[in-house]
Amino acid sequence: MTIAKKIEGMIAQSSWIRKMFEEGARLAQEYGRENVFDFSIGNPNVEPPRRFKELLVEVAGEDIPGIHGYMPNAGYQDTRAAVAEYLSREHAVDLLWKHVVMTCGAGGALNVAFKTLLDPGDEVVVPTPFFVEYRSYIDNHGGTTKLVETNEDFSLDLQALKEAITEKTKVVLINSPNNPTGKVYDEGSINGLGALLEDKTRELGREIYLLSDEPYRDIVYDGITVPSILKAYKNSIIATSYSKSISLPGERIGYLAANPAISDIDTLMDGLILCNRIIGFVNAPALMQRIIGRMQGITVAVDEYKRKRDLLCDGLASAGYTYEKPGGAFYLFPRSPIDDDVEFVRALQKKKILVVPGSGFGKSGHFRISYCVDDSTIINSMKGFEEVLKEYA
Amino acid sequence: MTIAKKIEGMIAQSSWIRKMFEEGARLAQEYGRENVFDFSIGNPNVEPPRRFKELLVEVAGEDIPGIHGYMPNAGYQDTRAAVAEYLSREHAVDLLWKHVVMTCGAGGALNVAFKTLLDPGDEVVVPTPFFVEYRSYIDNHGGTTKLVETNEDFSLDLQALKEAITEKTKVVLINSPNNPTGKVYDEGSINGLGALLEDKTRELGREIYLLSDEPYRDIVYDGITVPSILKAYKNSIIATSYSKSISLPGERIGYLAANPAISDIDTLMDGLILCNRIIGFVNAPALMQRIIGRMQGITVAVDEYKRKRDLLCDGLASAGYTYEKPGGAFYLFPRSPIDDDVEFVRALQKKKILVVPGSGFGKSGHFRISYCVDDSTIINSMKGFEEVLKEYA
Repeated sequence: MTIAKKIEGMIAQSSWIRKMFEEGARLAQEYGRENVFDFSIGNPNVEPPRRFKELLVEVAGEDIPGIHGYMPNAGYQDTRAAVAEYLSREHAVDLLWKHVVMTCGAGGALNVAFKTLLDPGDEVVVPTPFFVEYRSYIDNHGGTTKLVETNEDFSLDLQALKEAITEKTKVVLINSPNNPTGKVYDEGSINGLGALLEDKTRELGREIYLLSDEPYRDIVYDGITVPSILKAYKNSIIATSYSKSISLPGERIGYLAANPAISDIDTLMDGLILCNRIIGFVNAPALMQRIIGRMQGITVAVDEYKRKRDLLCDGLASAGYTYEKPGGAFYLFPRSPIDDDVEFVRALQKKKILVVPGSGFGKSGHFRISYCVDDSTIINSMKGFEEVLKEYA
Repeated sequence: MTIAKKIEGMIAQSSWIRKMFEEGARLAQEYGRENVFDFSIGNPNVEPPRRFKELLVEVAGEDIPGIHGYMPNAGYQDTRAAVAEYLSREHAVDLLWKHVVMTCGAGGALNVAFKTLLDPGDEVVVPTPFFVEYRSYIDNHGGTTKLVETNEDFSLDLQALKEAITEKTKVVLINSPNNPTGKVYDEGSINGLGALLEDKTRELGREIYLLSDEPYRDIVYDGITVPSILKAYKNSIIATSYSKSISLPGERIGYLAANPAISDIDTLMDGLILCNRIIGFVNAPALMQRIIGRMQGITVAVDEYKRKRDLLCDGLASAGYTYEKPGGAFYLFPRSPIDDDVEFVRALQKKKILVVPGSGFGKSGHFRISYCVDDSTIINSMKGFEEVLKEYA
């Protein structure tokens, strides 16, 4: 074999999410798209806000020399300033343009952050269940992933986190609203985590960063808000994207924002900007930066996702499924009636229902439903969900 | 210090190119942009072709649901097919859509290729002078850069390459038209390199890949054409972008195309697609993919660069500089009158002329001029170039 051994191994056990995506495409081709219930991937089906469309047409028509050329690697200064101003308001902290680096989505942001922060052997503590790509992102830059269980309701287990943090820990990575559970960590847990990290920093004599992957921040329900990590802890960095908040995952636009209170913040920012360049991102796509800079605070119609969540939750409850009702994102993570979630997922597949086994997220006995789909997909899948549950009753 | 030690070191000795870019911005602010002769960065100043603008307005106006969403990680199938068709014609090989992966520019393409190919300790052989970022791209994925001198006229030294290739070599990376020299390797050298790599593969019992970074392929002068690596060698991969050929470096759009003759090509493509995802690129920007798919074979007005090249070459020759006249790209790599190119570059800087020392590209005693600038910048800088050369005469 000729490619890298590590990559060869990864191909063999390639991501469950992508496997389902491909299986969905195959089934759709065989049976027609309307006959396949594809809940496997977090590809938003709520269209971008009208304002995006207007701005896209507007910037496409602008005739500015060099506008598709290089800008500073961190992004256009006015875009960074617009993001900083928005964040300052949202988080009640004083963020400046220089604390923001525009990135190729949150995937790009996280890789840039890990490349900047991790020395060989450094550990990144990650609560489970977790977005499966984190493991690769951390490994890409020589770090080690250390998984920590959450509580039964997927809230943070601060005692478990406390025990997991050692002199090897460089980063604690959280994701709230969470993929795959939809859990939003409440203010008590975030403040508790901040206090814990301050204690640990003193105890271990070592800076530990709290990195928050929050692309679903704006997709929350029932009056829930996502607490600010910038207020809770000094060494905090936000990694996010507009992929979900304005439905642009294919356009690869997001950012990193670092807490101005970080000691030696300028060196950190220099590092992030350097790594954005040397990993080969170079800069976030220019055209999207220009649009994003003019539409801070605008989001997709979150009500549509709420309706889908309620439709799904009510239907599955009637069918006999149990789950923690999610406060945000567009994922539900119900319990599988048997421990072997892969077997259960295969049984659903026979009814042309595509979901992802919880073991793909480090939590067996569950499965993930992405409900960013047409209402009809949810409604028409219910018969199949019910039938399969009965088989295992 | 809190960031990774390696990155901290890199910040300290940050890229010369970027240093000059920043110095240019500072001088422009102080003296006015028209009084600074900034030849430091390869940011195309010839505008994208009119067709790009038309297509941008066209796709911005299209109302297709999900069009900013995820597509398969390798890109839209019709874009990949359009690229494959174009390459098949250009290279007289049968390339299919599945042999193309759309990437975030050539920087993205190269990182994806190295991540896919390199096992720890693998060596990548690179002729000098070379684009300085290669070293980081290779190091990102655990590889080691092995530099090999070229001939006096910057053509490939096949004997030196032969000696450099060992049982540790996994990739030979070439860049033609070259940054920083503008050299185009002729058909004889490319075929010779292909034959050499076939011999070495047999001798060492190990597959060696020829990776060609060719974003300047369409920017060539005087009837020169860039020979096809796909015809010259079986294990060949093209990494490129539209950054220079249609002046879109800020938009981050490019691709990888692999020779269908590669043994186990399917595994290689699976690896490239996987790595495009796990490095965090996920996919090339959606909107740009849609445009690119409809404008294969269209390039910027290359004549404009040719005029600039001639203007610069003639001017510098009159002033007494010596150089190899470049056959492509938009760089000139003249000899410095003193061995210490950094000192000479600093002397030019006093005349508000910004260029990059050759030692930044692994070749001291030279300096790089990016002539993708206004004609007036070239014309008005000549007095300064002449004066500084006289100081050292």
